[in-house]
Amino acid sequence: MSPTRRQARLTHLREFQLIQSLPRRFSTQGLHPIVGIGDDAAVLPSSSSQHVVISTDLLVENIHFTRKTATLYDIGYKAAAANLSDIAAMGATPTAIFVAIALPPSFIEEDWHKFYRGLAVPCKRYKVQLLGGDTSASPTSLFIAITIMGQVAPGHFLTRHGAKNGDLIYVSGTLGDSAAGLAYLNQSKRPQKSAIRSKPMKYLVQRHLQPTARVPLGELLASQPYASSAMDLSDGLSGDLRHLCRQSQVGALIDSEQIPMSQQMQLYAKRIRATPLHWSLHGGEDYELLFTIPPQWQHELEKCAKERRIPITHIGIIQPKRFGIRIVHHDQRQDVFSPRSYEHFS
Amino acid sequence: MSPTRRQARLTHLREFQLIQSLPRRFSTQGLHPIVGIGDDAAVLPSSSSQHVVISTDLLVENIHFTRKTATLYDIGYKAAAANLSDIAAMGATPTAIFVAIALPPSFIEEDWHKFYRGLAVPCKRYKVQLLGGDTSASPTSLFIAITIMGQVAPGHFLTRHGAKNGDLIYVSGTLGDSAAGLAYLNQSKRPQKSAIRSKPMKYLVQRHLQPTARVPLGELLASQPYASSAMDLSDGLSGDLRHLCRQSQVGALIDSEQIPMSQQMQLYAKRIRATPLHWSLHGGEDYELLFTIPPQWQHELEKCAKERRIPITHIGIIQPKRFGIRIVHHDQRQDVFSPRSYEHFS
Repeated sequence: MSPTRRQARLTHLREFQLIQSLPRRFSTQGLHPIVGIGDDAAVLPSSSSQHVVISTDLLVENIHFTRKTATLYDIGYKAAAANLSDIAAMGATPTAIFVAIALPPSFIEEDWHKFYRGLAVPCKRYKVQLLGGDTSASPTSLFIAITIMGQVAPGHFLTRHGAKNGDLIYVSGTLGDSAAGLAYLNQSKRPQKSAIRSKPMKYLVQRHLQPTARVPLGELLASQPYASSAMDLSDGLSGDLRHLCRQSQVGALIDSEQIPMSQQMQLYAKRIRATPLHWSLHGGEDYELLFTIPPQWQHELEKCAKERRIPITHIGIIQPKRFGIRIVHHDQRQDVFSPRSYEHFS
Repeated sequence: MSPTRRQARLTHLREFQLIQSLPRRFSTQGLHPIVGIGDDAAVLPSSSSQHVVISTDLLVENIHFTRKTATLYDIGYKAAAANLSDIAAMGATPTAIFVAIALPPSFIEEDWHKFYRGLAVPCKRYKVQLLGGDTSASPTSLFIAITIMGQVAPGHFLTRHGAKNGDLIYVSGTLGDSAAGLAYLNQSKRPQKSAIRSKPMKYLVQRHLQPTARVPLGELLASQPYASSAMDLSDGLSGDLRHLCRQSQVGALIDSEQIPMSQQMQLYAKRIRATPLHWSLHGGEDYELLFTIPPQWQHELEKCAKERRIPITHIGIIQPKRFGIRIVHHDQRQDVFSPRSYEHFS
């Protein structure tokens, strides 16, 4: 290790100063913590008109991401987005995050800054404050554990267990973009996002590395009695729909022709002779929302979503449990709709 | 890898079932979550009469612990205790934890059970529920990130920044036991806790591997206007007092003769020609509380602590900032009281 590199390492005191400086990067609006970063714990005010929503996510280098295709800015960005997506799936408003990060010996201070710069972007968009965490050395890989908090009015949160027979199944956005972006990164030798000139490829890689959490849609679905169930798409539609059906004790029929796909993804699939439907049904990490609504709310929900420019698509109908989970193709043929394992990268 | 070992690995579905079964091991009293484990996030009720207290801690194999001297039961136990200690240091009542754990390939299902069995013990004692988390593979080391929540009445929490000139400095319990237990484990060749026959050594090793969080003391200090500041001793008195003084903008004078030390620790130090005062001043991971009180509360606090059988010792006095942080020895000689770095194990 060269002296320069050694100097750039985080010492205990330096780490303390750095962490103290972090909140400035994040929002200072929204929640008003009573005690913030720097004490044994944060203290948050609470009110009887809001429930507390809380979720924890773990991201491990060479399991969930690789520094070969993602910069530390991307890794921070996506870590925040994935956590915001959990809060969106509950129909809650995110308020604060806590970050535990273990840094391998190769990590230098600039990496640390890049990570937090990326993390701050989606947090700032939704006025989410960084209120605590822990930093440690790691013998080898980079580890990130994020806990996110949100709030929601009592009775207005969304769960995975409320879908009923006859409810309509929806997804937001387009599916499979992240898997296509990942496929592109994997086939490139030294993929540098900044070096990608093709606009469609830039779009797909962006969708993979810097996904958008559907926070406004979650809030919309929870604000009125629209959604009977909701979850976010992290493992892929086929796997996640199975979770939702199991927890709601129902079956489902999905129409393959209705699955929303981006032009960019379809073009790229054609180019490399991949199957776009495979990406959109089984590809993970789109962080779109999967949700169900009673049929009588269809018109009003679609109107509201359109007004707010949130793209949503009706892709199927909840069935009785004994029906199982099936997909109907353009020729009316029905298949059992089974998950294929999704690898975060390969 | 043998087939038996492969079968014992956690598959995705098996992991889901295991996690669903976990809450039974933990308390079901105390907090009444509205949504618990198994959804995108947990939903907790909140009331305007209680603030939410939250803290995150990271534990990394071969940085904070080694499986050479600690079983997975010990690792789970200590992870819970360290987090409970943060809540105790805020004067709050712990309510719920969230566990993110990354498992190396060598991990088998039985290890996972041992970890959670150990984690559940201190949690159950204080009616703390397990309400969520995340499990992932890890390419190499074991990583554990725990987020803990608690509640406290508004205005009744303890911070590190309220110590005032003239306040009395206290610690709970005895200091240096954990460092002594660690020294013993490090000098043993294959230390098996169950094989230690000497009662004093069993005690010291227990103090290192299964520390007790001072939750009732934290609650006592916050229940009445006793404490002006508090924190838990995780890095050692010399380092932690420095944090408290910096955040309170004060100095301190510590009396080395007043530092509480166990007989067991002093005996062991004598045996291996170590300095007991060094362990008690600089040794970490005792998870005792360091706190300050205005002098007029001394009598009442000591009476209350005695009634509840909580050992506390007056070890020094807060000074103006310009005084610095000093320690006075039995011969009245004063030294600057500087932290020595504490290694979790060596």
